Amino acid sequence: MGWARTRKDSMSQYVIGVDIGGTKIAAGIVDEKGGIVAKTVVSTLAEEGFETSLEQVYKSVEELKASGKAGWEEIKGIGVCAPGPLDPFKGVVHNPPNLPGWREVPLAELVSEKFDKPVRLENDANAAGMAEVKWGAAKGYKHVFYVTVSTGIGTAVIIDGKIYHGKNGMAGEGGHVTINYDAKDAVCNCGNTGCVETLASGPGTVRRLLAKLKNAPDEKKAMISAAGEKDDARVTMITVGKAAANGNKTALEAINEEAKLLGIWLGSMISVLDPEIIVIGGGVSMLGELLLATVRKTIPAYTINTRADKTPVVQAKLKNDVGIFGAAAVSPK
Amino acid sequence: MGWARTRKDSMSQYVIGVDIGGTKIAAGIVDEKGGIVAKTVVSTLAEEGFETSLEQVYKSVEELKASGKAGWEEIKGIGVCAPGPLDPFKGVVHNPPNLPGWREVPLAELVSEKFDKPVRLENDANAAGMAEVKWGAAKGYKHVFYVTVSTGIGTAVIIDGKIYHGKNGMAGEGGHVTINYDAKDAVCNCGNTGCVETLASGPGTVRRLLAKLKNAPDEKKAMISAAGEKDDARVTMITVGKAAANGNKTALEAINEEAKLLGIWLGSMISVLDPEIIVIGGGVSMLGELLLATVRKTIPAYTINTRADKTPVVQAKLKNDVGIFGAAAVSPK
Repeated sequence: MGWARTRKDSMSQYVIGVDIGGTKIAAGIVDEKGGIVAKTVVSTLAEEGFETSLEQVYKSVEELKASGKAGWEEIKGIGVCAPGPLDPFKGVVHNPPNLPGWREVPLAELVSEKFDKPVRLENDANAAGMAEVKWGAAKGYKHVFYVTVSTGIGTAVIIDGKIYHGKNGMAGEGGHVTINYDAKDAVCNCGNTGCVETLASGPGTVRRLLAKLKNAPDEKKAMISAAGEKDDARVTMITVGKAAANGNKTALEAINEEAKLLGIWLGSMISVLDPEIIVIGGGVSMLGELLLATVRKTIPAYTINTRADKTPVVQAKLKNDVGIFGAAAVSPK
Repeated sequence: MGWARTRKDSMSQYVIGVDIGGTKIAAGIVDEKGGIVAKTVVSTLAEEGFETSLEQVYKSVEELKASGKAGWEEIKGIGVCAPGPLDPFKGVVHNPPNLPGWREVPLAELVSEKFDKPVRLENDANAAGMAEVKWGAAKGYKHVFYVTVSTGIGTAVIIDGKIYHGKNGMAGEGGHVTINYDAKDAVCNCGNTGCVETLASGPGTVRRLLAKLKNAPDEKKAMISAAGEKDDARVTMITVGKAAANGNKTALEAINEEAKLLGIWLGSMISVLDPEIIVIGGGVSMLGELLLATVRKTIPAYTINTRADKTPVVQAKLKNDVGIFGAAAVSPK
C-alpha cells in the first residue's frame, strides 16, 4: 500500500480541457495546480457542418496528444465546453444556434470513445465557475455564485464545491432573473422581460447610454474622444471602459448605472443563495473596481441578508484561456 | 446483528415538533408516517419576557411527555421553529421582534439539556418545506422550491433532500427577490424595493386592490357583498378569496394579478434553481387553482428554462398543524 501511494504520487496527473466556440476551438493540457502545459487553437469550421466540426474537436485533442507535453497515460480525463443548450447529465449537445447541423449530439460519448478517456460536457459559465473554485478567486470556498458579464450574463451556482444542475441540468441561469418585469423596452433574447442580462450586460449598458446620448452629440463626441477613438467610432463597452478610465463623466455614469443594476440583482441572489463569495468574470469585469466598488455598495440595500455586506464580491482571477481552464475544471478525474 | 435490527424495527420512532410563535406555542409528537399522536398548545406569554416564555416552551414538551402517547425513549429528537432571525447552525435565536427580551438565546442547547434529546432549530419556511418533502406534496423529490404566501412570502431551497442554508444560514429568502426595482411605491419591510413579498403577498395584493378601488366605491361594495360580508367590512385576502369564489370579477382580477407576479418571480427562480417541483403553501395558497392555474400559465414566458412548463407547481398538502409538522420534520433523528 505504501508502494502504491508513492507510485501514484510520483506520476503527474493532467486533464484536457476543450472549449468549443462558434468560430474556434481552444484546447489545453492542464496540470493539477492549474498550469497550462500545452495549448492549441483550431478553427471550428462550423459552416461546414457537424462532421467537419466534430473532426476539428478530435484534431485539437490529437494535437495536444502529439505535443508530448504530458504522457497520454497521465491524462485522467477530458472536459468539454460547448455552446448551449446542452444536457450535462447525458453529455448531449442539443441544437446550438451557432453550431449549425448539430442536433442531439452525444458529444461526451463520442469524445470518450475516440480517446478512451472519461469525458464530461458542461456549459461555459458553469465550467468557468468551477475553474475559479479550483484555481482562481474562489479557491477554498464551497458555496459560490459565479457571474460572467460580457455580451450576456452567465452564472454558475456552486454548492458544496460542485456545480448545482437542478432537475433538467438547466439551473444556474441567473442572468435571466427578472429585475424589472415592467421594463417593456427590455425584452431579452430568452423571451423574458427585464432580465438582468438584457439590462446590465455590455450591450444593454451601451444601448441605454446611446439612447441617452441621442440628443447630446457633444457629450457623445467627448466620450469617444476620451477613449482615444475616432469621432465616428462605433461605441462598445470597450469605448466606455477606456473613456471611464480617462475620467470621462458620461462613461463613468454609464458604468455606475450598470453596477447598480448588478448590485440590485446580486442582492436578490444573496437573499436566495447566501453564497460564501461572489466572483465576477467576463469582459465587463475587466473594469475592476470602477464597476465592483458600486456593486458592493448597492447590494446591502437590496437584500434581506443582514450579513451581505460581508460577502466578498471579487473579480475573477482566470482571464486568458478561461475557456480551457473551465473545460479542464469539469473534467472527470 | 439480525437481532439488533429486529429489535430496532419493532420499536416505534417519534419526534417532537415545537413551533414557537409570538402568541402561542404549538407542539406535537409526530410518528414516522407523519401522524400527530399527541398535541398541545400553550400561550407564549411573550410580554412576560424571556424566562417566562422559555418556561412555556419547556411546558409544551412536558405536556407531550406526560401525555403518555409515546414512550419517552421512543422520542428520537426535538425540532424547534422560532421566529427569525436565527442561526440554524448554532441553534441560536438572535433577536426576534415579536419575542421581546430574547437576545442571542442558545435555544437548541437549552432544550437539549433540559430534555436530554438532540435538538435542531430552524426557521418556519424552511421547516414547512421539509415537512412537505417528508410527508406532503414534495414526497419523493430531492430538489424542491417551497413557497409560503400569506402576510409575507417565505421560501425554502431544498437541495438533495436537505435544506440549503448557505454561508450564514440565511439562504432561502426568495420572498425578498426584487422583481421590479423601479416600483418606488413598493418598499418592503426588509428595506429593499419591489421584492415579490411586498408586491404579491396577501397584504400587497389587498393594498393594490384598494388603491384601484379608491374611486370605484360601487365596485368595492359589490365585491364585499359577493364575499358575504358587511358593507363596511375591512377588506382582507379572505374577503377577496370569498368574493372570487363567488365569481366576483374585481376579486378575480386581483387574484389574477397576484398570480402573474408570482409566476414572473417563479420563472426567475426556475432559471436559477431548476427545481423538480414547486410547492405553494400558506394562507393565500388556499385559493387553490384560482391562483395556481395563472401562476403555471405565466411561468414559461418569464424563464429561459425551456422545460419549465413541465415543472409541477402544486398546492402544499399540510395545512392544519403545518407549524408542528415543520418543526418535527427538521428534528434530528
